[in-house]
Amino acid sequence: MAVGNGELPTLYPVAGFRLGTTSAGIKTPGRKDLVLMEIAAGSTVSGVFTRNAFCAAPVQLAKQHLSAGVPSYFVVNTGNANAGTGEQGLADSRQTCEAVAKLTDIRSESVLPFSTGVIGEPLAVEKIIAALPSAFDNLDVNGWEQAASGIMTTDTRPKAASKQISVDGHTVTVTGIAKGAGMIKPNMATMLAYVATDAAVDAELLGRIIQQAVNQSFNRITVDGDTSTNDACMLVATGKSSAPIVATEQDTLYRPLLDAITSVFIELAQGLVRDGEGASKFVAVAVEGGATEQECLQVAYTVAESPLVKTALFASDPNWGRLLAAIGRAGIDALEVDKVRVEINGVLIAEKGCRAGSYTEEQGVEAMAGEEITIAIDLARGDESAMVWTTDLSHDYVRINAEYRT
Amino acid sequence: MAVGNGELPTLYPVAGFRLGTTSAGIKTPGRKDLVLMEIAAGSTVSGVFTRNAFCAAPVQLAKQHLSAGVPSYFVVNTGNANAGTGEQGLADSRQTCEAVAKLTDIRSESVLPFSTGVIGEPLAVEKIIAALPSAFDNLDVNGWEQAASGIMTTDTRPKAASKQISVDGHTVTVTGIAKGAGMIKPNMATMLAYVATDAAVDAELLGRIIQQAVNQSFNRITVDGDTSTNDACMLVATGKSSAPIVATEQDTLYRPLLDAITSVFIELAQGLVRDGEGASKFVAVAVEGGATEQECLQVAYTVAESPLVKTALFASDPNWGRLLAAIGRAGIDALEVDKVRVEINGVLIAEKGCRAGSYTEEQGVEAMAGEEITIAIDLARGDESAMVWTTDLSHDYVRINAEYRT
Repeated sequence: MAVGNGELPTLYPVAGFRLGTTSAGIKTPGRKDLVLMEIAAGSTVSGVFTRNAFCAAPVQLAKQHLSAGVPSYFVVNTGNANAGTGEQGLADSRQTCEAVAKLTDIRSESVLPFSTGVIGEPLAVEKIIAALPSAFDNLDVNGWEQAASGIMTTDTRPKAASKQISVDGHTVTVTGIAKGAGMIKPNMATMLAYVATDAAVDAELLGRIIQQAVNQSFNRITVDGDTSTNDACMLVATGKSSAPIVATEQDTLYRPLLDAITSVFIELAQGLVRDGEGASKFVAVAVEGGATEQECLQVAYTVAESPLVKTALFASDPNWGRLLAAIGRAGIDALEVDKVRVEINGVLIAEKGCRAGSYTEEQGVEAMAGEEITIAIDLARGDESAMVWTTDLSHDYVRINAEYRT
Repeated sequence: MAVGNGELPTLYPVAGFRLGTTSAGIKTPGRKDLVLMEIAAGSTVSGVFTRNAFCAAPVQLAKQHLSAGVPSYFVVNTGNANAGTGEQGLADSRQTCEAVAKLTDIRSESVLPFSTGVIGEPLAVEKIIAALPSAFDNLDVNGWEQAASGIMTTDTRPKAASKQISVDGHTVTVTGIAKGAGMIKPNMATMLAYVATDAAVDAELLGRIIQQAVNQSFNRITVDGDTSTNDACMLVATGKSSAPIVATEQDTLYRPLLDAITSVFIELAQGLVRDGEGASKFVAVAVEGGATEQECLQVAYTVAESPLVKTALFASDPNWGRLLAAIGRAGIDALEVDKVRVEINGVLIAEKGCRAGSYTEEQGVEAMAGEEITIAIDLARGDESAMVWTTDLSHDYVRINAEYRT
């Protein structure tokens, strides 16, 4: 089950970035489970990684290698997360990087490893190494769609987004793919995302751009509040377009490029939510009228993560009582409950601390009937706002997560 | 579905505290839904109420009335929470108190109202008033068991606990009842609890006792992380036993009485968890080796509220990866993951950041097979510890909460 049709948009190739997908038979024979990405020389690369204290071996290594210099390859396997695997896991990830390096005569520090899938099982390094030549053979600037499928685990469909902008006669492309379908929550969660642009961007500025884009996208989604040990989000700028380098926030290209990158990130993040485990609704929780952005987020997450709100959404039940209860326990100091207003898809359902006088059950049922729900909350105590995206909590969520065993 | 046999223990009467249960037909005709409790003159009374900003009308009034003096009656209705009902709700609760007061010629401030049930519907005050005389007729020191059933909503069974202690030849009794089956979380949640003792206790000291007892019991349980607008927990000391008054923490009776009260509170709190919505497991999460109690609680709650851990518990899956991931994201500063140890019912499943070498899947499956699970986590960074109790997340949880409509 997933929300929306999930059709992929046109994915524009990014000069200087090639993707090769193949099958290594890591968990399921024949399944495309290995993706290699090649980054042209002269690129800049930035990344954001999980904050989970138990971060997996490949994450530890990817961080190390990234800090050592600009990488030339990403190697991504599914079927096995190489997490909770201790010293052996680190050795296995290192061996994977060495194998990629050997095939192209580079240092193994120029390879960043990524793994996703089952936790706690030893990585089938030999299978990966054996399949690498085929991944190299498949490298293609038009490899985005195949790669989007190749990085999937419990995802029911691939996620990708692509934008082109034109500034001063220069066309710049931003294209990205992502995977993830559960355990999605602020500060990164079981998700991998790879976004590339052919703009030239100063390395330090690229770091600020990815941080801003992640804050507006992957850090604004939540499916079940859990976070994973393997998350990573990478942004590559190859500099192969004709546009001049973006070195400061004053450069003409900076703002349109930031907007395009952020918009690709948001589309990918929303794609993850739409494919959330067991999702039957795509829900935006929009809080306005807060004294600070932080308190808006606090209310938005408390509502978005409330199991009672989420089961009501699954039941298409306009349960304003559960919404008010969630807002009330969000820990907002001196909240004036009499001023709080709640709308669902434009229908005013609660005000003055109780059900709106104008509200009828029929309106509520109609507002909740669709797949796309916006819960708009006005705290009426300031000018700040924030939005997060989430799903409902369905029977299928429990089924999927009770059946997916270690 | 609920965990354990749920048989009620012997409930010793508490001199000076009578309970009367009757049917007012508030939501379901014929159902026992109205409970009156009578407190003898000379008692001391203390209470703890929900911290939800949207606290219901009866909670607002109960707090007001309690601060105005020692109450003589509690009046509890089920079937309707009188929450999210605005001014009309306050007027309705006030009218209920006045009706009780009129029947016994006391001030209405001496009556504390409590409501639980559906949110946002007007309270059927006339039905309650009409049934009050019958509740008075039924007042009985042996009315505990009937009252335990009378305060139930989605509970599948009544909860009650009772202790007797003997100090210096004086027998002292502590008996209590509680209701609640979901939305259970620290800082009180959809739950009502009434505990009475025949000890004589100084009013101010009684306030400290209830706070300590609640901190060790109702503030240590979580089913789904949601909290309600109607929670209240009351402690009454009638002073009808032969024991001398407990006025300070140095008095001989103080420690045994505190222990007995805390033990009744814990038994009631655990009873709520065992009857958690859709619960098929009763789970204790015991964290030790923390630098502070606070960080132990932080880890314990992150584990206890993780939907991925909870669905694994439902599946009896010893999923150590999800446990480590939850511990890792609990936000503990500078956690040394290599030192963390996790046991399930005495079986070491994870150490040194990964699966324990000695661990076999068979051991794990056996450890998870029962209804009662203890997850013991050693953070190995200090001497503090904390325990919380929770349930699994089952298909039935979703079914119950998707079907229970406004």
